[in-house]
Amino acid sequence: MKMKKFINAPENLTQELLEGLAAAYPQKVKLDEGKIVVRAKPKSEDKVAIITLGGAGHEPALSGFVGEGMLDASVVGDIFAAPNAVSLLAGLRKFKRDAGILLVVLNHAGDVMSANMAMKMAQREGIKLKSILVADDISAGLDTPLADRRGLAGCIPLFKVAGAAAEEGKSLDEVFEIAEKFNSRIATLAVAMTGCTHPQNGQPITELADDEMEIGMGQHGEGGGGRSKILTADETAKIMFGDLAKAVSLKSGEKIFVAVNGVGATTPMELSIVFRAVKNLASEMGVEVVGGLVDELLTVQEMAGFQLIVCVVDEQSRKYLYAKSDAPYWTSLGE
Amino acid sequence: MKMKKFINAPENLTQELLEGLAAAYPQKVKLDEGKIVVRAKPKSEDKVAIITLGGAGHEPALSGFVGEGMLDASVVGDIFAAPNAVSLLAGLRKFKRDAGILLVVLNHAGDVMSANMAMKMAQREGIKLKSILVADDISAGLDTPLADRRGLAGCIPLFKVAGAAAEEGKSLDEVFEIAEKFNSRIATLAVAMTGCTHPQNGQPITELADDEMEIGMGQHGEGGGGRSKILTADETAKIMFGDLAKAVSLKSGEKIFVAVNGVGATTPMELSIVFRAVKNLASEMGVEVVGGLVDELLTVQEMAGFQLIVCVVDEQSRKYLYAKSDAPYWTSLGE
Repeated sequence: MKMKKFINAPENLTQELLEGLAAAYPQKVKLDEGKIVVRAKPKSEDKVAIITLGGAGHEPALSGFVGEGMLDASVVGDIFAAPNAVSLLAGLRKFKRDAGILLVVLNHAGDVMSANMAMKMAQREGIKLKSILVADDISAGLDTPLADRRGLAGCIPLFKVAGAAAEEGKSLDEVFEIAEKFNSRIATLAVAMTGCTHPQNGQPITELADDEMEIGMGQHGEGGGGRSKILTADETAKIMFGDLAKAVSLKSGEKIFVAVNGVGATTPMELSIVFRAVKNLASEMGVEVVGGLVDELLTVQEMAGFQLIVCVVDEQSRKYLYAKSDAPYWTSLGE
Repeated sequence: MKMKKFINAPENLTQELLEGLAAAYPQKVKLDEGKIVVRAKPKSEDKVAIITLGGAGHEPALSGFVGEGMLDASVVGDIFAAPNAVSLLAGLRKFKRDAGILLVVLNHAGDVMSANMAMKMAQREGIKLKSILVADDISAGLDTPLADRRGLAGCIPLFKVAGAAAEEGKSLDEVFEIAEKFNSRIATLAVAMTGCTHPQNGQPITELADDEMEIGMGQHGEGGGGRSKILTADETAKIMFGDLAKAVSLKSGEKIFVAVNGVGATTPMELSIVFRAVKNLASEMGVEVVGGLVDELLTVQEMAGFQLIVCVVDEQSRKYLYAKSDAPYWTSLGE
């Protein structure tokens, strides 16, 4: 059976999708050799560069967030596969500068391994850099050590905060500190209603019965342990927001940024209904939602489901979230 | 069998999704009574107002394009159902002004009927307005009269051009003329790989065999006559762009804006690959792509497929497409 996907030869998938991104937004991004997406108009060298790495197949993430006020570069692997250390090192070399580089790494084994190796090599070459680990998935439980939590779409508000701080001219230590502070109170939980298909080999990734959903699903179909009968949008939001609020120790009077990230087949219609429920739940506990996104930010092919991301903000991170960015897939929050 | 959708009571679907939109982007839009989405910060009264109407279930369209530089208001019906004439009249009354109103109507029977009735009533009340019909779907064939062509996602670049002209302070006659000129050279063609589910009654809308796709599918699953075995992204783009180029009588040396609109389950990965193919095809015929969008603009629930939109631009419409807009789901094209 043929896959129900608009693709050409599977082996060219990643190269072609990156060429397509650069073709659609040439004023914003361009594709360098070695599958490195960079800004069309580079940031000045006296500012900290923000770089990330990761597999393809999750579009618009990660490369769709390259742009002014967000990422300087995204080093891309193949579908669902981290780039190797040599590719990442090539990316880091391009951005060698006195101001330094902040490397944002999502916590998946392949990404972490490539990042660790490339950072060692880069440091030997005198490339100044720090790294930050995104491990926002709380599905493994609240007592799980950070190293055992996966990185999900919480990376995107983090790119925004770190990117805006760098754009403002903060030093590497300052950008790192601002990003770490924000990162320490991001929590994400995913829910899936269907599996999806690997776009290169056509194999199904995970399966769910007709009347089932699963809270805690990872972004490659890894189980999350929260399989249940299908619940309403409000019931689902209540369970997920409850867990997320606990994970970030959310207290009355605090302010949050909320993103409802559609992972594929779930419609913006549904995502809006979930956002409404979350805003009401936050309000009931005396928490103000200062901004939000309802969109496909980081997808998992045609999977039906979403990731709910809660970030506790202070005046500084709020300012950075609202700052201007021209990245192709970042929506300005307004003024 | 339960639907694989995150919803609550079907009868509240539209109200809840609009509340969610307003909750997510309170700096940009708000929801007025009678399911009318308006800007959070209204445009000054001396400028032409741009209003549209249509059913829900196609999010982010149409209401996600309310904002500075695009729509002033979107009058919403229920799922896949036009608002009635009385609702639309209520919307038109809110924007009564000496500068006038441009009403953008997508060519579907219900929308056209409501628009015609509401316009008659509005004119009796002295509301100054003109209307423009979007009938960009070319699937019925190139010889089909405009009145028999459906309105598809070509409305979105049209909102942008008309909205930017109005924002610049053009008169109603001028905005109408600019919009009509742009509208006369928009063509859209849709392709589907799967059907979808009506979110209120759970019924499947159209069905396609495992190895089939259909070019020409309407946005509620209406047949388009172009059923075939699944083709590659490049083959699909070649057929569709060829037809679209003919429909707008595209000539070497002309410039186009291209949008690849994902209608649901088709990933941004695939949409980028299609954009790449279209840009190459345009280039081969000596046509420059001056800007593009690769995104979910107007969806058809969880259907796999996309709409390819080609708009021939001149210096003026290009400027308006690139102009600033803060509508929640419009992506700035860069500077």
